[in-house]
Amino acid sequence: MSEVYIAGAGLTKFGKSPLSLLELFSEAAMAALAASPVQEIDAVYLGAMNPEEFTGASNIAAQVVEALGITGIPATRVETASSAGAAAVHAACHAVAAGYHRTVLVLGGEKMTHLTTSAATRILAEVIEAQERACGATMPALAAMITERYRQRYRLSSGDLERALCAVAMKNHANGARNAFAQFQKPITKEVYLASKLVSTPLRLYDCSPITDGAGAVLVTAEKTDLRIAGLGQGTGPAGLRERDAFTSFEPTRMAAERAYRMAGITPKDIDFAEVHDAFTSFEIISTEDLGFFPAGKGWQPVADGKTAPDGQLPINVSGGLKARGHPVGASGVAQVVEVARLMRGQGEIKLKREPRRGLAQSTGGLGANNLVTIVERADIGASPARAPLPPEPKLIKRRKNAAAKRSEEGTIETFTILYVTPDGFLPPLALALIRDNSGALVMAQGEDLAHLKIGRDVFLRQLDGGYVFTVKSHLDQVKQALDRLIRALPRGDKKTHSDEERR
Amino acid sequence: MSEVYIAGAGLTKFGKSPLSLLELFSEAAMAALAASPVQEIDAVYLGAMNPEEFTGASNIAAQVVEALGITGIPATRVETASSAGAAAVHAACHAVAAGYHRTVLVLGGEKMTHLTTSAATRILAEVIEAQERACGATMPALAAMITERYRQRYRLSSGDLERALCAVAMKNHANGARNAFAQFQKPITKEVYLASKLVSTPLRLYDCSPITDGAGAVLVTAEKTDLRIAGLGQGTGPAGLRERDAFTSFEPTRMAAERAYRMAGITPKDIDFAEVHDAFTSFEIISTEDLGFFPAGKGWQPVADGKTAPDGQLPINVSGGLKARGHPVGASGVAQVVEVARLMRGQGEIKLKREPRRGLAQSTGGLGANNLVTIVERADIGASPARAPLPPEPKLIKRRKNAAAKRSEEGTIETFTILYVTPDGFLPPLALALIRDNSGALVMAQGEDLAHLKIGRDVFLRQLDGGYVFTVKSHLDQVKQALDRLIRALPRGDKKTHSDEERR
Repeated sequence: MSEVYIAGAGLTKFGKSPLSLLELFSEAAMAALAASPVQEIDAVYLGAMNPEEFTGASNIAAQVVEALGITGIPATRVETASSAGAAAVHAACHAVAAGYHRTVLVLGGEKMTHLTTSAATRILAEVIEAQERACGATMPALAAMITERYRQRYRLSSGDLERALCAVAMKNHANGARNAFAQFQKPITKEVYLASKLVSTPLRLYDCSPITDGAGAVLVTAEKTDLRIAGLGQGTGPAGLRERDAFTSFEPTRMAAERAYRMAGITPKDIDFAEVHDAFTSFEIISTEDLGFFPAGKGWQPVADGKTAPDGQLPINVSGGLKARGHPVGASGVAQVVEVARLMRGQGEIKLKREPRRGLAQSTGGLGANNLVTIVERADIGASPARAPLPPEPKLIKRRKNAAAKRSEEGTIETFTILYVTPDGFLPPLALALIRDNSGALVMAQGEDLAHLKIGRDVFLRQLDGGYVFTVKSHLDQVKQALDRLIRALPRGDKKTHSDEERR
Repeated sequence: MSEVYIAGAGLTKFGKSPLSLLELFSEAAMAALAASPVQEIDAVYLGAMNPEEFTGASNIAAQVVEALGITGIPATRVETASSAGAAAVHAACHAVAAGYHRTVLVLGGEKMTHLTTSAATRILAEVIEAQERACGATMPALAAMITERYRQRYRLSSGDLERALCAVAMKNHANGARNAFAQFQKPITKEVYLASKLVSTPLRLYDCSPITDGAGAVLVTAEKTDLRIAGLGQGTGPAGLRERDAFTSFEPTRMAAERAYRMAGITPKDIDFAEVHDAFTSFEIISTEDLGFFPAGKGWQPVADGKTAPDGQLPINVSGGLKARGHPVGASGVAQVVEVARLMRGQGEIKLKREPRRGLAQSTGGLGANNLVTIVERADIGASPARAPLPPEPKLIKRRKNAAAKRSEEGTIETFTILYVTPDGFLPPLALALIRDNSGALVMAQGEDLAHLKIGRDVFLRQLDGGYVFTVKSHLDQVKQALDRLIRALPRGDKKTHSDEERR
C-alpha cells in the first residue's frame, strides 16, 4: 500500500446558504485548490447522503465534475448515510494507494435548509430501523434513549449528566465562535443552554446539531505533502437499537478505531486532538470513550473538567464540531478531515498549545451503524514500521433466522425518552421505551402515559396497529402479581380459587 | 497495484420479485458464495441507484451486512446512477489492489417493480438535466433523439435503422430465452417487434429495457483464482444532451474504454465477447462503436448480419443484456461482470465457439454521463507487461461561466422525437427537439405540432413558462424571410417598406 497524502483542503461557510448543492461543491473545491501545491485532478469522489430527496437531483457525481468544468475524469459518489463524506475520503485513499489515481478531489456536501425541519427530519429518519421508526422514533429520540441509558448504567445523577452535556455544548459553541466557517459563531452560557427547550428527554435543543447547508473538499494524493494519511478504519452495526448488545457505546466506532490505530501502528495515546461526530452532545462523550481516549463511562468527566477544550490535554472538536460548525450530513465526514488538516497546519484562529503530530477524525453513519475513523499525521515523523490495514477478522455469511414475532406480554424498560418534537402523525409529548420482554427479546414501544418512566420498571406490553404499547406496572399490579404467584404455589384443594374467580 | 481476481459470482432471478431489496441482496450473495473457493469476506461494496426513493430505506450498506449476518465489517455504498454496480466493482478492486481488503463482496441491486411505471420513471428521470426534464424529456425520449440523430448522421434509411434495432432486440431476447436468470425468456419475432407500440419515435417498447427487481454479487479478491481483473476505466460527460459535442457517441464510454484497454495492455481486438449497456437497443450499437469494436456509424451492420450473436465473431450480450435479462438499475453493472465470469467459466446454457480469453463489461450511468468499462481475463494467460492505470490527462478546474440565457429566436433542429409515453403533466404525443439557435447554443424545446419534423429544419423558437417552444418554419415563412432580406438589401428610399408594414 503506497503512502497517501493530503494536499489542499477547504470548506464553504456552513449554515443557511443561497447556493445550490452544485455551487457549494464548486466553492469547496476552489477553497481546497486555492492553497494546494497539487492542482491536477485525476478523479472525484463525492460523499452525499441523499441529494436525490434533498434536492431532486440524481447522478450527482457526474453533475459535479460538469459544474467544475472537468467533465471527463472518473467521478463516483460514495454513501454511508451521515458518514458519507468520510467514506468518500476512504475510497479515494484506496484508489490512490492502489496507484489507480494520483490525485483525487474528495468532496462532501449536502443542501438541507431549503426544506422544512419536518421534511428534512423525515429524510434523515430513513436510516432508522423500520419497527422503531413506526413507533415514532426520530434520531433525537433514539439518541436520547442512548443518553438516558448511559446515565443510568454509569450512575450519573441527572445533575451530573446535565452538567456534562452542557459542557460539551458550551465548549463546542465557544470553539465555533472562533471558526469563520461555523454555522453558529456565538458562545452560549449555561443559562442559555438550560433555557433551551427539551427535544427528547434528557436532550435539549442545544444538545442537537442543526440542519445545515455546506460542503468540504480535500485533495488526497500520492504526491508527498506535509500531511500523511496514517490510518483508516470502518465498522458497521445494526440499524436498530433493539438489535444491539450495548446501548451506551457504538461498537462500529470501536472497530473502526481499532483498525485505524492498527494500520497507523499507534495507540489512542498517540493522538493529539480529534474531531468527533457530535450530532448530539452525548455522542461526543460516548465517542471519546469508543475511541479509547477515556474509559467507558468516564468520558463525561474530562469534558466537564475542561480537559477537551482547545487548551486542554486532549482537544476535541476544536472546529466547533457538528454541534456549532453545523451538520450538512454528507459534508461532515470531509469537513472533519479538513479541520484536522487546518489545525495541523496552524491555520484558523485557534492554535493548540503543543504543535500536533497526529489528529483523528471520527464520523458516524445513521444511528452509529456505519462509522469511520481517519488518522492524519505529519509526514516528517517516521511512518510506523508495519502498516497492517486488513480488518482482523473476515466474516462468514450465515443467514440469520427471523426472530419470532410472538412477544411475551410483560417486560422491563431498558431505556426510554419523552419526545417533544414528534414526526408527522404523532402527537407530542410521546413516551417511547425500549422494552426487554420476558422472552429476552427487545422491542420498541410507545408509552400509554408519561408517568413512572424509569429504567428497570416492569411493564405490560401489547400489540396495537402493528406497533407496541407499554404500560408501567403500578405498585398495586406488582403486589397483585406477587399474590397470584403465592396462591399458585399453595397446595391445591379445590381447583377453583378465589383469585381465579376474581380474574375472570 | 497488486492483482485482483474474481472468485464466486451469482445472480437472483431478474424480474418482478416478491423479495425485498435486502432479501434480493442476500440471495445474490448466497449464489456468489455457493460455488466460491473464497468464503471469508473483509468488506461489502454495494451499488444501488436510489434505494431511498425506490424503497424508503437509507444507510443501505449497513443494512445489508446486518441482513447477511456479517455486521461489523466495513460496508460502503457506491453510486453513479445506472452504472452504480460497476462503480462498486471498481471501488472494491481499488481497495483490494491497495491491500486494504483481501476479499470484498460486491453487490448490486434495485427493487423497482412495486412502484407504478410512472413513479419509477419519475425517479429514473432525476438524472436528466433540469432544462431538458422541464420540457417533458424522459430517458426514452432522449435515447430516441440520439437514435434519430445517428440515423441521419450516418445516412441510414428508416428501414435500415428499423432492421438494425429489431436485430438487437431479437438477438437479446433469443439470448435471454436461454438464460435462467433473465426477466424475459421468450424469443421474439420481427412481427412481434414491429407490432410493439412506439414509445418515442423511432423507439418501440421492444427497444427499451424493462423495469426489474434483481441483484447480483461478485467476490473480488487478492486470492488467485481462474479469472483476473485486467482493466478498469471510467469516464464522465455532461448530463444534458445540449451540452454535448456529439449526439451519436458516448464520449465517457470512449474514455473509459481507452483507460481500461491501456491498463490491460490490450486493444479492442483482444476482446472475445462483451456485455454492453443496452438500456435501449440503439445504445448497444453505439456502445460497440465507442468500445472500438466497430467504426463509428458502422455498428448497426454487424448486428443486422448476425456477427454479434453467440456464434458470431464478437458475441455481444450473450446474457440477453439489459433488454432481456432486465435492468434493476443498480444491479446491472454487477450482473454484467457476473455474466462475463459465467461465460468464461463455461457456466450457463450458451457456450461460445472458441473458449474466451477476455471478456468486457460496459455500464452506463444516466444518459451516458458516467460510464465504466471492466475487462476480465483468464488468469492463466500472461498478464500484459505494463499496467498503467492512471488516466491519461488529469484535469485542472476552471469555473465555467453560465451561458447567457438570451436565446436567438430562430434556429435549426439538431434532433427530435415524438414521445408517446409522457411524464405526469405532459399530454402525449409530445414533440421534442434539440434546437441549435442562430447564436450557436443548443436548447431543448417542445414542438407546437407534430408535422414537418426533420433534422436540419429551420424553426422559430420562443420562451413559454420558463421553457421553450418551437415551430417549424413553413416554406411560405422561408420565402417571406428571403424576400425580407432581399428588400433590406435594396437601395433605400422611403424607410417604411411594404414588408415591414405587413409584419406588424
